[in-house]
Amino acid sequence: MEKVYIENISNFSGTEVTIKGWLYNKRSSGKLWFLLIRDGTGMIQAVVSKGDVDEESFNNCEAITQESSLMVKGLVNPDKRAPGGYELHTKKLEIIQIAEDYPITPKEHGTTFLMDHRHLWLRSSRQYAILRVRQEIIKACRDYLDGEGFVLLDTPIFTPAACEGTTTLFETDYFGSKAYLTQSGQLYNEANAMAFGKVYCFGPTFRAEKSKTRRHLTEFWMVEPEVAFFDLNDNMDLAEEMVIYVVQQVLKNKSEELKTLERDTTFLEKVSKPFPRITYDEAAEILKDKGVDFEWGNDFGGTDETIISENFEKPVFIHHFPSKMKAFYMKRDPENENLALGCDLIAPEGYGEIIGGGQREDNLETIERRLEEDKLPRESFEWYIDLRKYGTVPHSGFGMGIERAVSWICKLPHVRETIPFPRMLYRITP
Amino acid sequence: MEKVYIENISNFSGTEVTIKGWLYNKRSSGKLWFLLIRDGTGMIQAVVSKGDVDEESFNNCEAITQESSLMVKGLVNPDKRAPGGYELHTKKLEIIQIAEDYPITPKEHGTTFLMDHRHLWLRSSRQYAILRVRQEIIKACRDYLDGEGFVLLDTPIFTPAACEGTTTLFETDYFGSKAYLTQSGQLYNEANAMAFGKVYCFGPTFRAEKSKTRRHLTEFWMVEPEVAFFDLNDNMDLAEEMVIYVVQQVLKNKSEELKTLERDTTFLEKVSKPFPRITYDEAAEILKDKGVDFEWGNDFGGTDETIISENFEKPVFIHHFPSKMKAFYMKRDPENENLALGCDLIAPEGYGEIIGGGQREDNLETIERRLEEDKLPRESFEWYIDLRKYGTVPHSGFGMGIERAVSWICKLPHVRETIPFPRMLYRITP
Repeated sequence: MEKVYIENISNFSGTEVTIKGWLYNKRSSGKLWFLLIRDGTGMIQAVVSKGDVDEESFNNCEAITQESSLMVKGLVNPDKRAPGGYELHTKKLEIIQIAEDYPITPKEHGTTFLMDHRHLWLRSSRQYAILRVRQEIIKACRDYLDGEGFVLLDTPIFTPAACEGTTTLFETDYFGSKAYLTQSGQLYNEANAMAFGKVYCFGPTFRAEKSKTRRHLTEFWMVEPEVAFFDLNDNMDLAEEMVIYVVQQVLKNKSEELKTLERDTTFLEKVSKPFPRITYDEAAEILKDKGVDFEWGNDFGGTDETIISENFEKPVFIHHFPSKMKAFYMKRDPENENLALGCDLIAPEGYGEIIGGGQREDNLETIERRLEEDKLPRESFEWYIDLRKYGTVPHSGFGMGIERAVSWICKLPHVRETIPFPRMLYRITP
Repeated sequence: MEKVYIENISNFSGTEVTIKGWLYNKRSSGKLWFLLIRDGTGMIQAVVSKGDVDEESFNNCEAITQESSLMVKGLVNPDKRAPGGYELHTKKLEIIQIAEDYPITPKEHGTTFLMDHRHLWLRSSRQYAILRVRQEIIKACRDYLDGEGFVLLDTPIFTPAACEGTTTLFETDYFGSKAYLTQSGQLYNEANAMAFGKVYCFGPTFRAEKSKTRRHLTEFWMVEPEVAFFDLNDNMDLAEEMVIYVVQQVLKNKSEELKTLERDTTFLEKVSKPFPRITYDEAAEILKDKGVDFEWGNDFGGTDETIISENFEKPVFIHHFPSKMKAFYMKRDPENENLALGCDLIAPEGYGEIIGGGQREDNLETIERRLEEDKLPRESFEWYIDLRKYGTVPHSGFGMGIERAVSWICKLPHVRETIPFPRMLYRITP
């Protein structure tokens, strides 16, 4: 008898199969037991009728507890009322292990308790749904970029210098010298783009920020494309197309998961071309109109972003930031030195920035001057300067934070549920 | 006039296009210039005839140097003699930037020099080919596992405890406590497998090993699948199928790159089912037969692996290792406590171990005893023990080192060429 996965159960209608998994829930009605069984690929209801099974199998139904492991043999029967459309008419039920006092019960638990039991919490249907949406988002980013001819090139995690500032870096001893954990693959992406044209990296990045907000993790994943000969507008076009593709793939392939999460998909369905594109000045004007006390030259805070996003039904690009707030590598507007050719993408529904990027400074003298102005050690950036010496070209790129994208698309209250084992200011376990 | 990528040039036969890229090489024959141009997606020869272009364009051919950036407008002409099958009959050539004294010339350079200029070395055709094969290998692993219904679940980089030993861990300060960089996602994969059935992680892993060999990096990428209800044989089946798929995809999609690398593909074409599977004892016997002084109970060294692999034309599994050499989580053979249900896959042609894995210990009492025997702090592993308490099931998994796979498939002399910016004992720059 074939051992099958629940996700494939429709291929076995009318035949006898074996399923191995865990008990999610059970209820009894006299001589009948209804067991909800999960195997990681899906859920199915096993109906156990006293007359159809041996005594041990029937007694096992009484004995079995939530999250006990088991093996069920039975006949796959189509049943419209059943979740998934099929039921298993049980012939035999073997217990692999009884789970005694499984700590996560259907009752309410506090966040700390659930986070302490993250390794088990993952088995709950809500966490299961979120992480399957996460997988779809990651796959959609990769598929989109691969399909457009981008070359995946993994940038290093250990870096000798910082990309932006040094206060938020995790440091490690590297055989007697200091190394830092990367905050972004961008600088290396730029070298790769000069060799491969269209490139991306996709890996974990790290920030030792002492922020305890619903948007911050110390370890988070970013997808970062970088393209030679792209200007700011090309860059926004690329980001727009990638985000649209990602949302469409989730809507298409993860509708069940979105239902589990009770996600109202109205806003997601509106994610289509074109996204509004406003300047920093226009964004500041929106804040002013709404009575926010915002000073020109500052970065937008989380609340500011929410207020700005309320003016739009789609993700909105903000571009042309004051150059003072942007890093040395961001190209200035040739028509106005005070503005930098950066672009952020703000998600709707108050989810804030999910993409940050822009056009890079490609002029040799300018990048040398910027490094000096920012008092950055030139010797650490010689290789980066080389990219402006040997066949420099205009180029642009961006980074999308995966956890923030998952948070928005699933409409979660906190980013901690977007990754299997989140790392935060006060959380490095389990 | 359309700006096109060289990879798509065949779609534009007979039409005028613009190409933006870099000069790879040039030669002249009186009133003709032959420019080899790369744009990251491919190479094309631009023919510049004095009569067809303005004076500035023709003079630009004289002025332009290796790796200078440029823009060429011209007519796409099919030409069987041309690399790629097309030539560009140039109408106009604009220089974006002259690269003066590009450091990497067609002459021979030493390894240190090339590694110091890794950010530029990537533009060379050999490095370009290797990293495109790397991309294909990564994509093939993901596509294979995604296609088999595996759920990608990123395991954490920051861990509070070590998976195997503590001497080879990179340590960092985590807001006042200690954190270590992961050496493997396995333990977390096990939690994920109990929730999602078939899972994998794919990310960077770290070893602070003071090894300076051609097989070691301090930062390397691993793909690690883990499956609930899989035993040792299922695990070897999975590894075998994945490796075959990966090799086939590279042969199919990256044949040009393998040609550039002058890779004899004879051995790669033999990678098919079934891979030989021998026990540790049988492997030791092979060594003994070949006169190697090998002591039972030791791990195989690089040279041992090479000698063993010479007996086979395909990758070979070695399984059933002495349990003393394996970690606490590896299941012992129920018929012989002295043997552990591990399996390594040894690549042919002297490339050594590319996969390590096995069946995990799933018994609660046994795992508790093992932790004690190995003097590991129980409190760090409580969550891991929970997996044996609440619905334990047999399960197995493995990890494949991407850089070693790339090394083997490209037949490289050293693993340092398998990743854009390798990190090694004496190398953390650029």
